[in-house]
Amino acid sequence: MLDFKLQKTDGRTKARAGLIHTDHGTVRTPVFMPVGTRGSVKAVEQRELLEINAGIILGNTYHLYQRPGVDILRKFGGLHSFMSWPRPILTDSGGFQILSLSDLRKLSDEGVEFRSHIDGSYHFFTPEKIIEVERAIGSDIMMVLDECPPYPSEKEYVSKSIELTRKWAMRCSDTFHGTSPLYGFNQYLFAIVQGGTYLDLREKSAKDLVAADFDGYAVGGLAVGEPAEEMYGVADFVTEILPENKPRYLMGVGTPANLLEAVERGIDMFDCVLPTRNGRNSQVFTSAGKLNLRNAAYAEDELPIDKDCDCYACKNFTRGYIRHLFSVDEIFGLQLTSLHNLRFFISLMEQARIAILNDRFAEFKAGTLSRMNSHKKEET
Amino acid sequence: MLDFKLQKTDGRTKARAGLIHTDHGTVRTPVFMPVGTRGSVKAVEQRELLEINAGIILGNTYHLYQRPGVDILRKFGGLHSFMSWPRPILTDSGGFQILSLSDLRKLSDEGVEFRSHIDGSYHFFTPEKIIEVERAIGSDIMMVLDECPPYPSEKEYVSKSIELTRKWAMRCSDTFHGTSPLYGFNQYLFAIVQGGTYLDLREKSAKDLVAADFDGYAVGGLAVGEPAEEMYGVADFVTEILPENKPRYLMGVGTPANLLEAVERGIDMFDCVLPTRNGRNSQVFTSAGKLNLRNAAYAEDELPIDKDCDCYACKNFTRGYIRHLFSVDEIFGLQLTSLHNLRFFISLMEQARIAILNDRFAEFKAGTLSRMNSHKKEET
Repeated sequence: MLDFKLQKTDGRTKARAGLIHTDHGTVRTPVFMPVGTRGSVKAVEQRELLEINAGIILGNTYHLYQRPGVDILRKFGGLHSFMSWPRPILTDSGGFQILSLSDLRKLSDEGVEFRSHIDGSYHFFTPEKIIEVERAIGSDIMMVLDECPPYPSEKEYVSKSIELTRKWAMRCSDTFHGTSPLYGFNQYLFAIVQGGTYLDLREKSAKDLVAADFDGYAVGGLAVGEPAEEMYGVADFVTEILPENKPRYLMGVGTPANLLEAVERGIDMFDCVLPTRNGRNSQVFTSAGKLNLRNAAYAEDELPIDKDCDCYACKNFTRGYIRHLFSVDEIFGLQLTSLHNLRFFISLMEQARIAILNDRFAEFKAGTLSRMNSHKKEET
Repeated sequence: MLDFKLQKTDGRTKARAGLIHTDHGTVRTPVFMPVGTRGSVKAVEQRELLEINAGIILGNTYHLYQRPGVDILRKFGGLHSFMSWPRPILTDSGGFQILSLSDLRKLSDEGVEFRSHIDGSYHFFTPEKIIEVERAIGSDIMMVLDECPPYPSEKEYVSKSIELTRKWAMRCSDTFHGTSPLYGFNQYLFAIVQGGTYLDLREKSAKDLVAADFDGYAVGGLAVGEPAEEMYGVADFVTEILPENKPRYLMGVGTPANLLEAVERGIDMFDCVLPTRNGRNSQVFTSAGKLNLRNAAYAEDELPIDKDCDCYACKNFTRGYIRHLFSVDEIFGLQLTSLHNLRFFISLMEQARIAILNDRFAEFKAGTLSRMNSHKKEET
C-alpha cells in the first residue's frame, strides 16, 4: 500500500499538506505535475525539471504504448531509465486520449477497440492490458482504465458508464495484485471516480471504489467543458467521501485559480498541459496575472516575466528579449516561457503547502487571486 | 588595435594556436563560433553555450537591424546585455544575407539598396551605416560590408567586385575610426578578402586590405559551391599573404574535415550553421562519423550519441531515447542534438589547439579524419 502521510489539514478549509513516499522519492502535496506525455515535458530538459523542483511528472500510457512501444520500454528498463528521470512518474491510462484522438473506437464491457491516430492500426485495450503496459512503463503511480463521458451527457448514459468504470477498475486491481513490478521498485494503483456532474452518481462511483481500497483516488471527467463552479462543487462533494489517508488527484486541472480552489476543497494532486501549451503560444503566468509576450507593448520592457520568480528565465532575461525571440520564431523563446510557466505552477503549490502548514491557506488564496486579478483589470 | 597573441605555430604545418583578448574575455584559437543570427543560437540556452565552452558567438547585422532593430538594441545597452551573453560576439555585416535573402537589391558604389524579406520595406545599407548598426549591436568584432560574388563568377565581374569590397572596407574603417563604442567596451574591425577562386585577385584583395591594417582578416566568398580542394587552395594561398600577428577567419565553414584542413592551412576562426541546422534535422556528428538519429536502426541503441563526448546529451541520454524524441516530434530531441553538435565542433577545435601546442597537429588531423571515415565506410 502506498505510504501517504497527511501532515496537516488547514484550520479553516479542507486544504491538506501531505507526503507521498515512493521508491523514486517523496512527493510533497499539494503538487502540480508537469505533463510529459511522450517521455518529454515539451521543450524542457530533465535537469531543468529538477531545477524548478518538479516532484513528479506525468506520462501517458496510450501515447507511450504507440511510441516507443512496450518492447523498447522493457529493453531500456522502463520510462525512468529511458528518459533519465530520477523522480516519480504517474501514468494516465490513456482512456481519455483513446476517446478523443482515435479515429474509430468500439467500447464494450471487455474493453475498447481503437484505431491508432499514428498509423491507423487496430488495437484493443482492456483493463488487464493497460496494467501490463503500465508495468512495462514502470510508472510509480498507475491509473486504471476508465471511461470519461463527454460533457454534457445524459444521466442514464453516465450511470451505465460509472458501472463500466467500476468493473474496469476492479479488473485493473485484480491484474495489478496478480502481477509484479518489472524493474525492482514498487508501483501503485489509483482508481478514478467518474459520474459527470451528477452528485448521486459521483457518490456511488466514489463509494464503490473506496470499498476496493486503492492506493489513491482521482476525480476524473472534470475540466471537460462544465462551468468552473460545477467542477469545484463536484470536487468538494467527492473529497467528503474519499478517505483522509489516501492522496486525491484532480485530473487535467487547470488554471492557477482552479488549482487554489480545488486545494481548498481537499485535492492534493494536479496535472495540466496549460503551462507548457500556453508557454509555447507566448502566454506566461505571473503573480500579477497573464501576459502575452508577443504583444508589441513588451518590445522595450526591461522587466523579467515575473520579478517574484526564481527561474532561469526570470533571473536572466527580459520580457523585451523574450518578445524578440517569439517575433523571430526562435525556439529559445518557448523554452524560456515553458520553463517559467512550470516553475510558476510548481511554486504556487509550494506556497500553498507552506500556507496550509501555517493554517493560513484562505488568506493565501485570497491574496494570490486578488493580485492576479488586479492586473487583469488593468489590461481591460 | 586588437590584442592577438600568436602562441605557437605547429612544427610541420601552418596550424596556429593563439589568444584573442577582448573586453568580454579571451578567445582561444583555433575556435569554432556558434551562429546566433538573431540573438539566439537556435534551441541552445546561453548557459549551455558557456557549459560547452563556446568562447565567442556570432550575430548577424542584417537580421538584427531588422529585428529587434537598432533603437531597441541601444535601449537595452547592446546585444550582450539584450541576450545576457557575457563572452565575445562577432557580427557578420549581413552583406551575404542581403544578396541571398532580399527580394530586390540594387548595388552601387554608394552601397546596397534592398527590400526586407520580413515586411517588404526598403532599406539602404552603406559601409557607414553598417558600422553604425554594429556600434548599436556592440559586437566585440565587427565585419566590414563586402560583396560576396556567387560561384562561379566571371573573372571580370570578380575583379570589379573586389575593388568595390576594398572601397567599402576603407569607408568602414574610416567610420570605425571616426566613431566610438557606445557601451564602454572596445570593438574591433575585421576586413574580408574576396576574389573568388582567382588567386591573382585574392592576392590583390588581400594585399590592399593588409595595407590598411585592420584588426583581423576574414577569407570570404568560399563555401559557396566550389570544390573543397579549391577552398583549401585559396585558404592556403591567402594565409601566406595575411600578417602573422592578426587572426584569420574563414567565413561560413564548415564540416569537421573542412575545419581541420583549414586549420592546417593557417586559419584561426570558423563559423557555420551546420551543427545546429543538421542537429535540428536529427543528424549528429561523432568521432566515428555522422549518424542520422531518425534511422530506425537506433531505436534500441543504448549508446550515447558519442561515447567520447562530455556534453549533457551524451552524459545522460541514449541514441534510442533521442531517436524516440525525433519520431514523436518532441522539441527536446533537437535541443539535445544541437547542443551535442556544437560541443563536438568546439571540442574538435580544443583538441586541435592542444595538438598544435604539442607540435602534433598533422597526426591529430590524420587520426581524427581516419576515425570519422571508418564509420562512413561501415555505413555504405
